[in-house]
Amino acid sequence: MQDAATAWPEVTGWTCPAPLRDTPRIVMGHGGGGALSAELVEHLFAPALAGPALAELTDSSVVTLGGARLAFSTDSYVVRPLFFPGGSIADLAVNGTVNDLAMSGAQAAYLSCGFLLEEGTEVATVARVAEAMGTAARTAGVEIATGDTKVVESGHGDGVYLNTAGIGLVPPGVDIRPKRAVPGDVVIVSGDIGVHGVAVLSVREGLGFDVEVESDCAPLGGLVQAMLEVTPNLHVLRDPTRGGLATALGEVAAAASVGVVVREKALPVPDPVTNACAVLGLDPMYVANEGKLVAFVPREHADAVLAAMRSHPRGASAAVIGECVEAHPGMVVARTGLGGTRVVDVPVGEQLPRIC
Amino acid sequence: MQDAATAWPEVTGWTCPAPLRDTPRIVMGHGGGGALSAELVEHLFAPALAGPALAELTDSSVVTLGGARLAFSTDSYVVRPLFFPGGSIADLAVNGTVNDLAMSGAQAAYLSCGFLLEEGTEVATVARVAEAMGTAARTAGVEIATGDTKVVESGHGDGVYLNTAGIGLVPPGVDIRPKRAVPGDVVIVSGDIGVHGVAVLSVREGLGFDVEVESDCAPLGGLVQAMLEVTPNLHVLRDPTRGGLATALGEVAAAASVGVVVREKALPVPDPVTNACAVLGLDPMYVANEGKLVAFVPREHADAVLAAMRSHPRGASAAVIGECVEAHPGMVVARTGLGGTRVVDVPVGEQLPRIC
Repeated sequence: MQDAATAWPEVTGWTCPAPLRDTPRIVMGHGGGGALSAELVEHLFAPALAGPALAELTDSSVVTLGGARLAFSTDSYVVRPLFFPGGSIADLAVNGTVNDLAMSGAQAAYLSCGFLLEEGTEVATVARVAEAMGTAARTAGVEIATGDTKVVESGHGDGVYLNTAGIGLVPPGVDIRPKRAVPGDVVIVSGDIGVHGVAVLSVREGLGFDVEVESDCAPLGGLVQAMLEVTPNLHVLRDPTRGGLATALGEVAAAASVGVVVREKALPVPDPVTNACAVLGLDPMYVANEGKLVAFVPREHADAVLAAMRSHPRGASAAVIGECVEAHPGMVVARTGLGGTRVVDVPVGEQLPRIC
Repeated sequence: MQDAATAWPEVTGWTCPAPLRDTPRIVMGHGGGGALSAELVEHLFAPALAGPALAELTDSSVVTLGGARLAFSTDSYVVRPLFFPGGSIADLAVNGTVNDLAMSGAQAAYLSCGFLLEEGTEVATVARVAEAMGTAARTAGVEIATGDTKVVESGHGDGVYLNTAGIGLVPPGVDIRPKRAVPGDVVIVSGDIGVHGVAVLSVREGLGFDVEVESDCAPLGGLVQAMLEVTPNLHVLRDPTRGGLATALGEVAAAASVGVVVREKALPVPDPVTNACAVLGLDPMYVANEGKLVAFVPREHADAVLAAMRSHPRGASAAVIGECVEAHPGMVVARTGLGGTRVVDVPVGEQLPRIC
């Protein structure tokens, strides 16, 4: 694992960039999309790599090239198992990147794909992943334009890892990013939450249980297009994947220095998710989604945007779940069913690793 | 490894797409950049994923978006060890993708980066990789615009894997791709070959030996720009990475249905590479390079392009090594020092895995 140590002298005097919690080694939570992930990006990756685009730390960057305004995004996918109810690693790899681009208002046009294969993996498995990827790309209306394959020795890797990157055009006048949330914005979620995480969990080795849910993994470009037809002035879009809705809301609150108030009763949580989460001790607000978005919409457009979402197949059960406020900037607060309030923290790691 | 098998019923009736050599499992050679890699792409990935851009199977695709002609490319990086004489996995990740874009005539503008970390990896190692990536990006004049981090359990992965994707503008009038090689083209290599593979090999666990070479890992965008200032009508550029110069030439010969004749004596092979290859039983023509290119140039421009290359630091020892001919289409032939000829095959796998 530490090849570097054998090939290169130890770096002396290196100190952990605070506040990396003084952990000298990578832990699973660094990949969980929560506070540990954010700290790694903010204190380690951003200073080392940072350009102006990366500094925004959004789902996708918006860059200008040859006069075109492009959204550009990447994600790696390590989900286990490779196939799960309602989808596969290939569906995640296509839709995850398509959706990251959609969160900038862009329609995905081209994807790259990197296959990282473990020696000994069945060729039939690779073929099924590739076929699922092709089907997902055609469904999302995106073209896979370039690719790469690497193979690592048996015992490294894990069958198939994927990476996709994508580019798409941002329409003129559209400027959607977390910093644009302002007090008064209405917070809308496009449908049931918690479904993807519970679906993957239901087939996880050693955890298998019967639950009647399938992953919501789906492309959101069309839904976003329908919303933009109402107004180009959407303030923020996020797809609440790793870390769930709670993390997405927390990141927006922090980026824009606004408070967010959520009404717990308004959250669309399907019964099978509620029941599975109750048994397993999970909170649906922290469970990953792969076909949902949360939108921060100026109040004057909220009704029309909600109506447009409900007219689209991917937003049929869209609901207003809360609003942006001036109070408690950077913090998300939930009004509970009993009339109380509780703080919705960004989790440190992820309740469940390898769900995407 | 075979999560899919436990989570999903066996696919019956699936037959290996011929001619995948009837291997039911992935072998290291599928990632070697040689014939096995090409067969996997041609017979498995391309039919499943194919759009028109992917069908060209070039180092980078050229796509049009918002009126801009963009080169788009991706590669994953799994080199072992992470740091080697003359570079690191981060230098490869930046320069590999920058160079793939340059092989379409594009200056890289923006990169994405995906970090795939193994639980338990030292945070200091990740920091050193990130810092090396930032330095390499600044040297190459490219901005890292977007990124992602995933963590896999200890025992999967291998410390750090990287993926980069990149986009860059293709200048007007430039159309560089393997199919454009024609008989009469002069074949020029930009400098010493075989250096990267030997440098990595020299520090590989269990194979360590003393050799006075450092990897040639470097960005080639500036060299390509200098060549394009002579003429936009360069026919083909390839960076001979996995599979070395022999594979790059073989792929061009096959794509354009031309013969290629190489004069062995004209190949610039530095003495330490010659000596290391002699001891290890390797052929320098098959050893990877990470800072070299091979160009197919119309005869009337060859002298001027060669002069421009020699005036650039990355092409100071550029040399004409052969030409395109009408005879033996699809085949590369070397004229040996003794006046004979030999066929230069595309290798089946790679002499040495995990060199990039």
